[in-house]
Amino acid sequence: MEEWEDYVKALREEVNLHLREFLDRKAGESQDTLIRKVSGMIREYSLRGGKRIRPILVLLGCDLFRHHTAEIAKASISIEISQSYFLIQDDIIDQSDTRRGFPSFHIQVWRDIFNSDPSKRRIAESVGIIASDLSESYSHEAMLEAGLPDDIALKGDRLLSEIFEVTGQGELIDVFSSENESFSEADLMRVHLWKTAKYTVEGPLVLGATISGRAKTLQNLSRFGNLLGIAFQIQDDILGVFGDDKKTGKPIKSDINEGKKTLLVLKAMELGSPEEASFISRAIRSGNISDDDFTRVKAIMERTGSLDYSRRLAATLVKKSKDYLSRVEGDAKIKRIIEGFSDYLINRES
Amino acid sequence: MEEWEDYVKALREEVNLHLREFLDRKAGESQDTLIRKVSGMIREYSLRGGKRIRPILVLLGCDLFRHHTAEIAKASISIEISQSYFLIQDDIIDQSDTRRGFPSFHIQVWRDIFNSDPSKRRIAESVGIIASDLSESYSHEAMLEAGLPDDIALKGDRLLSEIFEVTGQGELIDVFSSENESFSEADLMRVHLWKTAKYTVEGPLVLGATISGRAKTLQNLSRFGNLLGIAFQIQDDILGVFGDDKKTGKPIKSDINEGKKTLLVLKAMELGSPEEASFISRAIRSGNISDDDFTRVKAIMERTGSLDYSRRLAATLVKKSKDYLSRVEGDAKIKRIIEGFSDYLINRES
Repeated sequence: MEEWEDYVKALREEVNLHLREFLDRKAGESQDTLIRKVSGMIREYSLRGGKRIRPILVLLGCDLFRHHTAEIAKASISIEISQSYFLIQDDIIDQSDTRRGFPSFHIQVWRDIFNSDPSKRRIAESVGIIASDLSESYSHEAMLEAGLPDDIALKGDRLLSEIFEVTGQGELIDVFSSENESFSEADLMRVHLWKTAKYTVEGPLVLGATISGRAKTLQNLSRFGNLLGIAFQIQDDILGVFGDDKKTGKPIKSDINEGKKTLLVLKAMELGSPEEASFISRAIRSGNISDDDFTRVKAIMERTGSLDYSRRLAATLVKKSKDYLSRVEGDAKIKRIIEGFSDYLINRES
Repeated sequence: MEEWEDYVKALREEVNLHLREFLDRKAGESQDTLIRKVSGMIREYSLRGGKRIRPILVLLGCDLFRHHTAEIAKASISIEISQSYFLIQDDIIDQSDTRRGFPSFHIQVWRDIFNSDPSKRRIAESVGIIASDLSESYSHEAMLEAGLPDDIALKGDRLLSEIFEVTGQGELIDVFSSENESFSEADLMRVHLWKTAKYTVEGPLVLGATISGRAKTLQNLSRFGNLLGIAFQIQDDILGVFGDDKKTGKPIKSDINEGKKTLLVLKAMELGSPEEASFISRAIRSGNISDDDFTRVKAIMERTGSLDYSRRLAATLVKKSKDYLSRVEGDAKIKRIIEGFSDYLINRES
């Protein structure tokens, strides 16, 4: 096992401990059966699968400047819980039935609480929306109740709130992208920056550095996180079409069926023949692509060089990001670990 | 004009000033046209109508112990902005097309951005969900950036987060109420306590007292707020059926059409004949009640004594609440003003 793997594994175990403790408490604390049921479902949803990338990055961001305390580890889970807030809601917006190889939250509610009654889909979605809100409150609570000094807790919560706001803005542009005929690569990069990089990489690293209470400058760390975060999303979109759905836990056709204008899609339409472009345009609007058509979409992405373009852009961004990382102040060992972990994030198959 | 009216009017003006300033800033700060559009719509939505009950109660809760500073007034708007978070989402969950006599937020989006294209209702709702999230982030931001001392800001933000969590729990029980055949008066009182009293009366008063930095005990203030808040909701439900929709700005049949199990409905079903009970049960499930049936529902509520029961219960709760108010520590004049304002809240016609 490499140096970074050992270190990250230990962080993951620490995060899981606090995460489980917090969610156990939330799932147990209400006297109301229904609220206990729903908070228990939030608990299961937040614990299942999940690589804990975000809280690990919080702790690495902190460890650059000082080894994290137990309070900082407790605060780090706020960003993991906020993932439930985003994912539950995202699946309602995208009408996705699965997440991480399991039913999405509102589908789980529909099955478990409403016995899959077709007339109850809408109410199951409403429960999902409220559960997503509750997760967001849990997230603030995890930060505010971690036991950090007042000034640090306040800075941490401000950053958390800012991450939520920027992510919401990214979602907004993303939701409109399917309506926007002139949605460009530059627009897409902004969605990646706001919707993914902020709450997956840059936000967690900066949050960790901030709640360390010791960081002086954050600019290079922030730039590193932004570039790596964009690369992460490009890679995620490649996995979404060319990956192995047994490993990703995500139905392989779902990105196409949801009409996502990923870089793969945009570039294939730009570089392909008019006929290929309109074929892809129809495919991402169909909502239910056939196996044959899906094979053809992938062939077009390969032939036009769109797949190569995505891969090369991700690699370039990673390379640039490392330049910034090298300029980050802080512990040299932790910088090596962050580098190892970011290579893993980009080369992962799931 | 009575003593309380003058005082409350001045507070309302102060709140409106800070609210407008904050929302102007948020609506102007993004470089992105789409985000500016949506945050501009949040601005309009938050400013239109609205009695500013909640921030006024924050300031009254504070003034019991010391006259509020400009920073406290800035922080008070957080709870007003959170109303946009709740109302936008509530109207999506309840599928309501109007709010305060205007189109509900997602309907406004659907009209303004999607030209009322029938195939775009769902995406307009998604935009609504995200706008509701953004309002929630704004709400935390208003608290965190108001310039309060760190320890006070932290306490305020914790309370805000707790208010959101409890309100979410109340919404959860409310959403299930239509599915719950044995939904009782006690269940309903819990919904009123959690979904209304917490974020409309008790939460704001306790928040204000807390950020005053001077309050010693909060128990009596909290009890006062809870009882008044429940009475407020009972009164709101009476207005929702027997009020003047020109004054309330709410279609008079909407509570019935949304299938709300209000106290009026529960009591009429309990006290009415089996035939009357099943008539009301069908009426609240119909989704689109006729004028004749609506008239009959109201007649049953009157004949069975359900309307009287609701009115009497509200009056009893108000009376009890005043006992607690009399025991609250703090400035005697402000206590008189709170009493005057709470009489207005219960006797209002809109």
